[in-house]
Amino acid sequence: MADNDFDRIKKQVREFVQERDWDQFHSPKNLSMALIVEAAEMVEHFQWLTEEQSSNLSPEKLAEVEQELADIQVYLISLAEKLKLDIIAAVDKKLVLNAAKYPADKVRGSSKKYNEYKDRS
Amino acid sequence: MADNDFDRIKKQVREFVQERDWDQFHSPKNLSMALIVEAAEMVEHFQWLTEEQSSNLSPEKLAEVEQELADIQVYLISLAEKLKLDIIAAVDKKLVLNAAKYPADKVRGSSKKYNEYKDRS
Amino acid sequence: MADNDFDRIKKQVREFVQERDWDQFHSPKNLSMALIVEAAEMVEHFQWLTEEQSSNLSPEKLAEVEQELADIQVYLISLAEKLKLDIIAAVDKKLVLNAAKYPADKVRGSSKKYNEYKDRS
Amino acid sequence: MADNDFDRIKKQVREFVQERDWDQFHSPKNLSMALIVEAAEMVEHFQWLTEEQSSNLSPEKLAEVEQELADIQVYLISLAEKLKLDIIAAVDKKLVLNAAKYPADKVRGSSKKYNEYKDRS
Repeated sequence: MADNDFDRIKKQVREFVQERDWDQFHSPKNLSMALIVEAAEMVEHFQWLTEEQSSNLSPEKLAEVEQELADIQVYLISLAEKLKLDIIAAVDKKLVLNAAKYPADKVRGSSKKYNEYKDRS
Repeated sequence: MADNDFDRIKKQVREFVQERDWDQFHSPKNLSMALIVEAAEMVEHFQWLTEEQSSNLSPEKLAEVEQELADIQVYLISLAEKLKLDIIAAVDKKLVLNAAKYPADKVRGSSKKYNEYKDRS
Repeated sequence: MADNDFDRIKKQVREFVQERDWDQFHSPKNLSMALIVEAAEMVEHFQWLTEEQSSNLSPEKLAEVEQELADIQVYLISLAEKLKLDIIAAVDKKLVLNAAKYPADKVRGSSKKYNEYKDRS
Repeated sequence: MADNDFDRIKKQVREFVQERDWDQFHSPKNLSMALIVEAAEMVEHFQWLTEEQSSNLSPEKLAEVEQELADIQVYLISLAEKLKLDIIAAVDKKLVLNAAKYPADKVRGSSKKYNEYKDRS
């Protein structure tokens, strides 16, 4: 993969919005709504599938899911931009937090309590 | 920003999951659910705010929103990984599609029809 | 409104599912996914509208929103049925809880803190 | 179950909101956000469970799920009220539409196409 692809797509998303004068609709409130709508389009592909079927999608279905993946990423980029937040920096901070919250030696395995762990990223 | 940060965080997310043996829970079906739950935690911060208030968050609120941003990105990375999809490639394809679907000269402006455009990324 | 309409529609939803032998797909897990997908279809109608526009929908838009309202109610009924829960009883309990959590004399008004109240039902 | 319970809880929800002067926050836009946030709290209970586990919840978990069920119903009632829509009438219309869209004799069974049916209410 080429360098700085993430910076490149952030720039492309920004320009796409500006060219269309759509920034006026991009309050964080609205963007959070647009993002969850795309997240739901992702969920919709899996709602009647078993977990195993969800891991074995047809090429057609995979192509549709790929589009929702992109839509979610694009809105996330716009949302971060509007809030003047940096996604990479935010993820770095969160991974440190999560590592402290879920020490590997404590949470590894399959005890009943694993159902109580909300963050499984 | 350093090079390949996106590759770096993808690798860190992958290792985080492996160290905890959490991959067993990461069917695409489950990950799509975890992702929309985080998207909703983002929405929750804005549900009673006006659009303007959503653009002027306190430092405390902004820090919380930054965590949801990270959580969404992390699950998106895990979901892409499980589906063997590449987020950057997916976004590249989608931006081309969107540019054709919404030519700037046609959709720019504030006609009533803008409410009918679903993709405003 | 006629008596027992809620019981009537619960019965009709149950029969609709049974006639089609769709109960096999109706695990609570799946139903929760189907429900949030419909909730997102509702959100989608409002994502680019201002709050005021959302209170003044065209007849066409209102008809679409009415369909999402119905879809959400129907999946909620199926979900309650699968979990052997009674929606009316659940609401009764929750209203009592909420009244204690948000005493009217304490939460009425427009202090800054109102943004911190999650349950505004 | 007593008569007109649904009318009764609609009235109680309306009064609850009025006593607290919260109607000002109840634009349909905001209510759609509040509703999907509750729908996500429901999803969260199931995200790491298998379908079978989701059908066999502990009493503690079931009590939590019951609360989300109530929260969703309450916001749905407020949303319908704000839009001057009647939930029962909306469901009646939708069930007729769905019966025509999914004739029992055509959709019953377990053919591969069932994954393509979005409405399985």
